[in-house]
Amino acid sequence: MWNAERAVETLRRRGELLEPVQGAVGLRGGALALFDAIEARVRDACRRLAGETWRPAAALAWRTLETADYFASFPQWLTAAAHMGDDEASLEDVATSTRPAAAARDRFGPPAAALPPAACYHVYEGLRGTTLEAARRVTLQCTCWRHEGAATLPLERGWSFTMREAVAVGTPAEVAAFRAEGEAAVLRVAAALGLEPEVVEATDPFFRPTGRGKELVQRLKGLKREVTLDIGAGRRLAVASTNLHEDFFGRAFGIRDSAGAPASSACVAFGLERWLLAFLVAHGPDAVAWPIRVPSHQLQEAGT
Amino acid sequence: MWNAERAVETLRRRGELLEPVQGAVGLRGGALALFDAIEARVRDACRRLAGETWRPAAALAWRTLETADYFASFPQWLTAAAHMGDDEASLEDVATSTRPAAAARDRFGPPAAALPPAACYHVYEGLRGTTLEAARRVTLQCTCWRHEGAATLPLERGWSFTMREAVAVGTPAEVAAFRAEGEAAVLRVAAALGLEPEVVEATDPFFRPTGRGKELVQRLKGLKREVTLDIGAGRRLAVASTNLHEDFFGRAFGIRDSAGAPASSACVAFGLERWLLAFLVAHGPDAVAWPIRVPSHQLQEAGT
Repeated sequence: MWNAERAVETLRRRGELLEPVQGAVGLRGGALALFDAIEARVRDACRRLAGETWRPAAALAWRTLETADYFASFPQWLTAAAHMGDDEASLEDVATSTRPAAAARDRFGPPAAALPPAACYHVYEGLRGTTLEAARRVTLQCTCWRHEGAATLPLERGWSFTMREAVAVGTPAEVAAFRAEGEAAVLRVAAALGLEPEVVEATDPFFRPTGRGKELVQRLKGLKREVTLDIGAGRRLAVASTNLHEDFFGRAFGIRDSAGAPASSACVAFGLERWLLAFLVAHGPDAVAWPIRVPSHQLQEAGT
Repeated sequence: MWNAERAVETLRRRGELLEPVQGAVGLRGGALALFDAIEARVRDACRRLAGETWRPAAALAWRTLETADYFASFPQWLTAAAHMGDDEASLEDVATSTRPAAAARDRFGPPAAALPPAACYHVYEGLRGTTLEAARRVTLQCTCWRHEGAATLPLERGWSFTMREAVAVGTPAEVAAFRAEGEAAVLRVAAALGLEPEVVEATDPFFRPTGRGKELVQRLKGLKREVTLDIGAGRRLAVASTNLHEDFFGRAFGIRDSAGAPASSACVAFGLERWLLAFLVAHGPDAVAWPIRVPSHQLQEAGT
């Protein structure tokens, strides 16, 4: 039987998984062909859920995370983009150093922008201050960043990873209907990939002591549910979550629903590398055993 | 007549272009439908040039840029990913601050990884220390980051932007043939989009005074050529470059060609947002006037 560790090691040995930085993974060959096939299925499922597709920017304004109260919740994960200054003397020091990377690292300014911890923040920011004529349903995908330190594992828990979301903003009834549709869509994707999902009530790992109250409310109200898949050795991994935010983001970002009330929102989020991992654990790393077809030309492309 | 500034302003007004952070652009509606169509054409052209597709990691190891002698060449652009530490007291300070983003910015450690200034570095790193049985041709796309300060302009010169490359590593003859094919492929993409390309000899904007020598060599040997498109108001923009590196990366990364010599390399790089901009300047922002078809459902999705 396969498990997460063996699957990752096999991909590494075949040159199909590269990890140039801990928690940041590149793919080649059969693993990439499979990733592409999974990505396309999840994209299509989310396009059926959401009429609109957005392509988000690679960075997020600090203001967006402040408005979303991110810093009181998950500051421990936060990753941001810093750039070199343009001070000539400092650049010359870097350029002439015998250890230029170390010299450069000491010369970055404070990060100018956040890297997105989730795709959906782009949607709330994009709708800030608007009154909706009807519910909006948006799908978008981006590289997300969450630094989880020693818990980082390739495919399973990346520092950077690929998140596809479908997001609804509207009345409470509209977003509740969306959430139910979204959960059904996740289960259909799993079935189509020959995987056996389970739905579990969940909570976010809020950092602050005051976050404990949020966790309790989440659980009591069923605001967060996760879909898990087997990754071997008795472990299951959350590969998607469906979340009801009530009117939290509507109030924070000044978005009003078609009835003029602070808008409610919900999101369905897929972690694509986790789907890849669970698929490999279920069906093994060899395409002949896979229940879906992938482009055969890509399978020839082994590593180095 | 359209020009870059008017095209960008029109997209902004329509809600098709968002810029949450200066130099980081998101797309919606017709502009996104067009971007997707251009992206697919460039991808297909690069797949015809290159037998292998890689999906690179979102981050690059410092060592890769050191090996590539990046710091002596273009340190001024460098962007990197920093993450919060896990010190509880510090996180609590951020969580309880009345200005949490500012509090967080001061608490990031030195960046742990570089964000890629170009896609092709992933290829040299991926082939490090290998001897090739035959030439390798790889295509890959990623979000790249170059901070150009006051020169930053939406679509035209992003802090983050989307680069698709095809890269060849092999003997001098193999990579010279690839470069010629690559340049022809760029010109065909332009023609298929109803655009009028020009090929110009170019040089890189090396930071250091000693880089002037490299510029002269580049120009004398024809190592860098750019394909430019009209963006109105008498200006042309480089939308692709074709580059011969001789055996620079082969020596640096210890890659040997099939004859046992340090491998030569070449790359063809497309800046996708720049193609979008040049297309909009040539054909305007309304799909009815475009010489290519885009999915009509996406055109309905105006902004907010």
